[in-house]
Amino acid sequence: MSMKEVINDLLGYEGLKIIQRPDIFNFSLDSTLLASFATINKADKMIVDLGCGNAPIPLFLSLRTKAKIYGIEIQPEIADLAKRSVELNKLENQITILEEDIKNAYLKLGVSCFDVVTCNPPYFIYKETSNINKNDYLTIARHEVKITLAEVLISANRLLKEGGRLAMVHRTDRLIDVLDAFRKYGIEPKRLRFVYPKQSSKESLIILLEGMKSKGKGNLKVLPPLYVYNENNTYTDEILEIFRYRGEVVKK
Amino acid sequence: MSMKEVINDLLGYEGLKIIQRPDIFNFSLDSTLLASFATINKADKMIVDLGCGNAPIPLFLSLRTKAKIYGIEIQPEIADLAKRSVELNKLENQITILEEDIKNAYLKLGVSCFDVVTCNPPYFIYKETSNINKNDYLTIARHEVKITLAEVLISANRLLKEGGRLAMVHRTDRLIDVLDAFRKYGIEPKRLRFVYPKQSSKESLIILLEGMKSKGKGNLKVLPPLYVYNENNTYTDEILEIFRYRGEVVKK
Repeated sequence: MSMKEVINDLLGYEGLKIIQRPDIFNFSLDSTLLASFATINKADKMIVDLGCGNAPIPLFLSLRTKAKIYGIEIQPEIADLAKRSVELNKLENQITILEEDIKNAYLKLGVSCFDVVTCNPPYFIYKETSNINKNDYLTIARHEVKITLAEVLISANRLLKEGGRLAMVHRTDRLIDVLDAFRKYGIEPKRLRFVYPKQSSKESLIILLEGMKSKGKGNLKVLPPLYVYNENNTYTDEILEIFRYRGEVVKK
Repeated sequence: MSMKEVINDLLGYEGLKIIQRPDIFNFSLDSTLLASFATINKADKMIVDLGCGNAPIPLFLSLRTKAKIYGIEIQPEIADLAKRSVELNKLENQITILEEDIKNAYLKLGVSCFDVVTCNPPYFIYKETSNINKNDYLTIARHEVKITLAEVLISANRLLKEGGRLAMVHRTDRLIDVLDAFRKYGIEPKRLRFVYPKQSSKESLIILLEGMKSKGKGNLKVLPPLYVYNENNTYTDEILEIFRYRGEVVKK
């Protein structure tokens, strides 16, 4: 284990640990919200998280399901953190981390065989003129250097069964792009939730969106807003409930 | 005045009255919310409400602006109610009602000369197979019999100046259609607000959307949610504030 690594409790989840490298990559609240937001059914057998980072979403989801969970991560150092976090939690039988480009994941995983795809994708459009180092760990995680939104949707569509679900977190200022991309690539938006920092916030910053691989058009439901902080900067009760995960812990 | 007509206070607005025909057409809360939501600037000179019904939106807006306000209504009996409501309030100098098809309004009003267009359009897609009477007053107001969403957008774009704003209320289950139509017809979405019946409601039913006639793409802001009722079915404080209109009443 590198001197730069730390082991953190995966928030309040029962006994789960995660290996972090604060200098290059820490998991974000957004991943936690996505892992809680995604619909998981008892019949689901196969789940894949695209761009899994150090695997917070696969680890969170292991509490909610017996399904096999894959995590795809293109950056070797981060995929290595993810693999060792899975081992640390003795979850190798349920979670498999693949160091792979999301666009090629179907070559190893097959097409049309997943019930659920989750993705916390790079949020920012990358411009060659951007004054950022495109080899930085964080740049790759946050900017569309290695993969664009359209490519994420194409990849998700390939992996999903007909009727399978894609759950994504993204920035609210890209709402229209995200809705367009879902529909364009055959994932019909079904559930949308807006996340606001506080009740007094003037606008939402983050969206949670779930869609279904389906040929028909369906009605999108816009769910109640989710507030992260109280006015005194403590977490809201709803966020604390997500952290504590009071749902049934699935026994394997 | 027909025996079937009643004169109502236009909610709590200062002294405004509106003539209603409960058997064929009453203005809705949605119109009130739209008239409150639309951005009105001091420099605005020309406003038009497309499909004005008995003119609640022009009447509400007269409190907020000195601009000239037009109301377009295709149904003669309802346009007549609107005209007489304007006269009843002695607002003939500010508000002009035209009995006209929205699609042809530009022939009388000119192109690219409006600062603001408002519209509470028919919400429901009309199918020839629908088991509804397509000549009913309410059917025409609620279903896309005489005009489609795309035609509303084309009409609004023709009427608006470059940089002018379209404010629309619609059903949340048509969110993606509405966003698509705005962008397709050159009105870039800028402000979006979701209306929920109550805080405990499982989903939003109504959206308020404002866009700008503009060639560039801009960031859409998703504003805080708007709740109509408290849990005990009384109006929320925010709705009561809208009804009471505590803003400055513009003196003419």
